[in-house]
Amino acid sequence: MQEDTIAAIATAIGEGSVGIVRVSGEMAKSIGEKLVRTPSGKPIRLARRNIRYGRVVQPDSEDPLDEAIVLWMPGPHSYTGEDVLELQVHGGVHVLQSVLAACLAAGARMAEPGEFTKRAFLNGRMDLSQAEAVIDLIRAKTEFAGKMALRQVEGRFGDEVRSIRKELLTLQAHVEVTIDYPEHDVEDVACQQVLTVGEGLLKRIDKLIASAALGRVLREGVATAIVGRPNVGKSSLLNALLQRERAIVTDIPGTTRDVLEEYINLRGIPLKLMDTAGIRQTEDVVERIGVDRSRQSMADAELVLLVYDGSQLLNEDDRALASETGNMRRIVVVNKSDRGVRPETRAWIEGLASEGVVYLSAKTGEGVDSLADRVIDVIERDIAVDMDVSYMANARQTQLLQLARQDLSSAMESAAAGATLDLVAVALQAAYVQLGYAIGEEAGEDLLDEIFSRFCLGK
Amino acid sequence: MQEDTIAAIATAIGEGSVGIVRVSGEMAKSIGEKLVRTPSGKPIRLARRNIRYGRVVQPDSEDPLDEAIVLWMPGPHSYTGEDVLELQVHGGVHVLQSVLAACLAAGARMAEPGEFTKRAFLNGRMDLSQAEAVIDLIRAKTEFAGKMALRQVEGRFGDEVRSIRKELLTLQAHVEVTIDYPEHDVEDVACQQVLTVGEGLLKRIDKLIASAALGRVLREGVATAIVGRPNVGKSSLLNALLQRERAIVTDIPGTTRDVLEEYINLRGIPLKLMDTAGIRQTEDVVERIGVDRSRQSMADAELVLLVYDGSQLLNEDDRALASETGNMRRIVVVNKSDRGVRPETRAWIEGLASEGVVYLSAKTGEGVDSLADRVIDVIERDIAVDMDVSYMANARQTQLLQLARQDLSSAMESAAAGATLDLVAVALQAAYVQLGYAIGEEAGEDLLDEIFSRFCLGK
Repeated sequence: MQEDTIAAIATAIGEGSVGIVRVSGEMAKSIGEKLVRTPSGKPIRLARRNIRYGRVVQPDSEDPLDEAIVLWMPGPHSYTGEDVLELQVHGGVHVLQSVLAACLAAGARMAEPGEFTKRAFLNGRMDLSQAEAVIDLIRAKTEFAGKMALRQVEGRFGDEVRSIRKELLTLQAHVEVTIDYPEHDVEDVACQQVLTVGEGLLKRIDKLIASAALGRVLREGVATAIVGRPNVGKSSLLNALLQRERAIVTDIPGTTRDVLEEYINLRGIPLKLMDTAGIRQTEDVVERIGVDRSRQSMADAELVLLVYDGSQLLNEDDRALASETGNMRRIVVVNKSDRGVRPETRAWIEGLASEGVVYLSAKTGEGVDSLADRVIDVIERDIAVDMDVSYMANARQTQLLQLARQDLSSAMESAAAGATLDLVAVALQAAYVQLGYAIGEEAGEDLLDEIFSRFCLGK
Repeated sequence: MQEDTIAAIATAIGEGSVGIVRVSGEMAKSIGEKLVRTPSGKPIRLARRNIRYGRVVQPDSEDPLDEAIVLWMPGPHSYTGEDVLELQVHGGVHVLQSVLAACLAAGARMAEPGEFTKRAFLNGRMDLSQAEAVIDLIRAKTEFAGKMALRQVEGRFGDEVRSIRKELLTLQAHVEVTIDYPEHDVEDVACQQVLTVGEGLLKRIDKLIASAALGRVLREGVATAIVGRPNVGKSSLLNALLQRERAIVTDIPGTTRDVLEEYINLRGIPLKLMDTAGIRQTEDVVERIGVDRSRQSMADAELVLLVYDGSQLLNEDDRALASETGNMRRIVVVNKSDRGVRPETRAWIEGLASEGVVYLSAKTGEGVDSLADRVIDVIERDIAVDMDVSYMANARQTQLLQLARQDLSSAMESAAAGATLDLVAVALQAAYVQLGYAIGEEAGEDLLDEIFSRFCLGK
């Protein structure tokens, strides 16, 4: 239990109907009783998990600040595990600030970003992987991303890591018993077991590591450049995709983005689509800036949609783009299929893509679904995104998982090479510790500070 | 009671720790039970004014959407007077949208802006003046503005209007009894009473009308232009005021404002300060645009702070500004008093302002408090803002109060002129009705739609 009591505005800042000031810690109850009056002006009596109506007043002057719905959720069964008071007041910037100021005047201190969740972690209400996933849930761009983040918040990743750690511990115990009672046969049996069990655990760790790809894609989106010479219909294609997939374009203040970028929700995967200026040889200085920027987008992209106009003959620019994107992960698209496709154009383009070309009409919408299918195929296969996992490692966890994998591998190598069991035990122990870090066991204060400082205030 | 059940996101849109989806109406309970599961997966049982923890699921697939704190506040003692369900979930845009979508899928319809408060009004939970004040409370720019809006929400304005109406009704009843039993003496007594009581009621109505000035100033701020030739220290003065008065500069997304405008909180009154480019004669085209804009600010301002540099001799520009602002409500300020004030400059400036000149140093802060005192004096006296009232009429109410005042005056004139009592009674009745409109008695659907459509969603 932390000594001091913290307070913060828990809802987004802006103009809303309702806003919440949240208080957590030992003084939460006395702060509530100091600040809230019943409608008839008496000090409020808070009852466990009960909703009360009252008005928040200045602690000294009794000046009323706002009407409030008051929630009293004593620990340990609260979000932070401590006593939690929530004051629901009108959602204006000034009202919330003045109610927060009253809480501070009544003895709370301003919470740091992420401090409520940090306390939840420190009080054992969630492991570190759950705490980290809270931010993914808040920032989720698609329903699928929200679902995956929720699984993480619910602890699927932590459950799997804990299960692997348990097996590692059993294995290590077995090895150490053998060290203490060394008989040759038993040593062989122990080594064999390290190899057998270790094999299974390696696979499970690999699956956890692989889940990082999905996590990254859901958090950042798949950077996708739509590329082609002018007038092949790149913008129409972008619009057709936006419309077909009922894009949720989230407008979170503070999200900086290039005007050319749009997020679309493709079967639950956020695609960061970059509509590029048409790429062609040009002497015009201004146009060249656009072309250069398009080339940069192409270079940054994980996936290129290379668009041709099937109703036209190909020119030099078309051919140049084909070779320029030759080494990129690309899907070749022939647009304007409603106007018919010229045979010589078709023949040349088909030669480009061994996997086949997507014919579509951004105008009529025909073929747009096939393109969506193809994009998802490529993401699953080439970007190695497994959409069927039930957890997602983040970058920090992946690093630790890789270290654990190395330690486990070296334990297995030692066992195979007939090294002394001491070495095997030490390596198993090391893997166990690395996995512990991933879920926040034995995490140092510095690490926690770094992780939770990325949170928003009030969480 | 309205037939259908409404739902909306009640917290500000953005990235927050917590967000609220609010549901009101007959189906609120069944929607809660359809959408929320206990941690062990059973349908939740809602208990009156109790806080439950659970998870929100898709109504058909049982796919989890988020963890939730669930509040159940059955009518009639709820905000709207109807059954109200609140789902507190993580404050992400996507999470909130998906929980709202689930509520809609479970039978609610999307609430219109202001519809929760409209229902509160229709169900008699508040009068129209209270409902209208909710938006002032949410948008309050200073603590004082919040306090005044809260008084309005608590019904001080409505209380006063109801009290006046009651007296009008008694008066009217007295007059009508006299009509039915006409005896000459009694008629005289009745007329005398209309004059005496009417006098008192007129004063009270005038006080209500006068309170509109405070309301407008608190809502919009006092437009104040800081004017002077270049280098007299206008920006330093702005900064000194900002610092001294611990300005709360609210940063509400969507608030459009000129980059030159800042709100400062001066003793509770929001001042919309317009720092103008230095005004002087110039041939430079670009500079002239700035000067023109300054002149426009000056013309729009309710108060001009005319700033001179006391350590310099005055030039033509200084003199031109004095005559240009001669007809404006202005306070003359001599800055840089720390460097001493030249006698000839002092003599000329003192001649400008019969009320005295404020000497200050924006650099050292000396004299800045006196300027603040002077500004408040001018606002109270010249803009006729009475800061001691306990209610504030808005524009709509003021119009109705003025109509009521006219009706009451004409009743009194008729009584004084010895007109037939019928005329007096009709005029008293008219005043009674106008005051009723002000607090929403007999308000038509069109008026309500127009008033509540100015609310934010979810309120």
